[in-house]
Amino acid sequence: MDTLKKNWFTEACELWPGGTFSFEVKEVLYNERSEYQNVQVFDTTSLGRVLVLDGIIQCTQKDEFSYQEMISFLPLCCHKNPEKVLIVGGGDGGVAREVAKHPKVKEIVQVEIDAKVIEVSKKYLPFMAVGFDSPKLTLHVGDGFEFMKNHSQEFDVIITDSSDPIGPAVSLFQENYFSLMKSALKPNGIVCSQAGTVWNDIELVTSTLSHCKKQFPAAAYGYTSVPTYPSGQIGFVIGSLDKDVEFDKPTISFTREDEKAMNLRYYNSEVHKAAFVLPTFVKYQLS
Amino acid sequence: MDTLKKNWFTEACELWPGGTFSFEVKEVLYNERSEYQNVQVFDTTSLGRVLVLDGIIQCTQKDEFSYQEMISFLPLCCHKNPEKVLIVGGGDGGVAREVAKHPKVKEIVQVEIDAKVIEVSKKYLPFMAVGFDSPKLTLHVGDGFEFMKNHSQEFDVIITDSSDPIGPAVSLFQENYFSLMKSALKPNGIVCSQAGTVWNDIELVTSTLSHCKKQFPAAAYGYTSVPTYPSGQIGFVIGSLDKDVEFDKPTISFTREDEKAMNLRYYNSEVHKAAFVLPTFVKYQLS
Repeated sequence: MDTLKKNWFTEACELWPGGTFSFEVKEVLYNERSEYQNVQVFDTTSLGRVLVLDGIIQCTQKDEFSYQEMISFLPLCCHKNPEKVLIVGGGDGGVAREVAKHPKVKEIVQVEIDAKVIEVSKKYLPFMAVGFDSPKLTLHVGDGFEFMKNHSQEFDVIITDSSDPIGPAVSLFQENYFSLMKSALKPNGIVCSQAGTVWNDIELVTSTLSHCKKQFPAAAYGYTSVPTYPSGQIGFVIGSLDKDVEFDKPTISFTREDEKAMNLRYYNSEVHKAAFVLPTFVKYQLS
Repeated sequence: MDTLKKNWFTEACELWPGGTFSFEVKEVLYNERSEYQNVQVFDTTSLGRVLVLDGIIQCTQKDEFSYQEMISFLPLCCHKNPEKVLIVGGGDGGVAREVAKHPKVKEIVQVEIDAKVIEVSKKYLPFMAVGFDSPKLTLHVGDGFEFMKNHSQEFDVIITDSSDPIGPAVSLFQENYFSLMKSALKPNGIVCSQAGTVWNDIELVTSTLSHCKKQFPAAAYGYTSVPTYPSGQIGFVIGSLDKDVEFDKPTISFTREDEKAMNLRYYNSEVHKAAFVLPTFVKYQLS
């Protein structure tokens, strides 16, 4: 236990008892309670800047690109013409940054409930908050649930970049949320939601996918590698109103030049296909 | 820091400074120094039994199947007829357990340097040490390097299940080790070595692959997800004397019935192909 010294932050959560990840802190940049949650930003010795909400790591400068690229490009590249996109959550700006890169996206609407997260990200996490500068984006501070009730058949793609399902975010993993998103989609629309890890909570993955399947004629679970999330693996439930969609066949292929121009560090067309290939214990649990 | 209490074991290593993983210990089952290293076995609240060597997690009951299946079946299923297999290291028995399952494998030779690891695994980790019971296996206690010097052109596949490259294991990541393995292989033989994670040490992955490429006409890096290893991702360098090998096209496909009969929980033919699909930042670093 000699590494457990001062200046180390330890993440622990009831969702994954018995194991914790800790990182060494160079400087506490921010530590305040917002209206909704405790918001912390750290500068660290090995992960760059780190955003923590209610004690849970949301993103680190070292590996956030894997999460942001995959939650954005998987659904965008499953859609034939993703012109108008809604982002629910994503207050750090990282998903907006990625969505804005896609050549077919014309308009992005984002609804984040916590203005403090946006403000703090703009100040301390500019590498993600740069997403807020996109001329394609209209940013609302408010409740995504309420927003969608007033917007029907409006979006091609809805991406839900939520925190984990404890506290207020629980509702974003339930069937009525998928029903609400469905009503806000245009024909052939696609949704993509953060849906947890198969290693620590395969029941959550199973139930979220099941809720999605009840509302959408096609649904799948895809995943990526994010070292600083519990288990190092996190996935997404994707649903489509197009029953003939083939999630593992991207509708658009990017060349190496495209990848460079868009600064894609994780996503490529082969990674897209592989994201839907499930380990045996997951494949049969989810089928 | 309130989770950092008694009965938690913390893994920390110079290979990944600034971040640590900790787990809650129910019982310390074994804690002694062998001739080569410190050997610990814990019973834990969330990971089952855990083997730790020199302070580094080697395997946990929760997720060891991913590592053992992938380091074994990736090379075995790249070879057309893997009849005779050498395992270097792997003193817990997990790799032997997997290799013995492959229908074409007739004979397994294993060389593990530390008799204490074998003994402790048989006593406390029977779910892996069951591998030692295979009638296909001949187990030697000794130095894999020395063993191979006396066995030329003898094996179809050589699997190196080593600890991380600090201390004695450093030599297993260098070019002369790949040269030695090459001499111990039959024509068209294949090697597969634990080769680290792209997230924490892409230089190690790059250099190990480079050493392999200098000795083998075909080489690749494949990877899998192991939550309790640093970054949750670990990979393997695979080299083949068959210059026409296609690593991402398994030579044998298993049916669902095969998978069940062999108790394959991670590996399947689609996972095999996907294991060689690299994230963009890795693809161009390794090419």
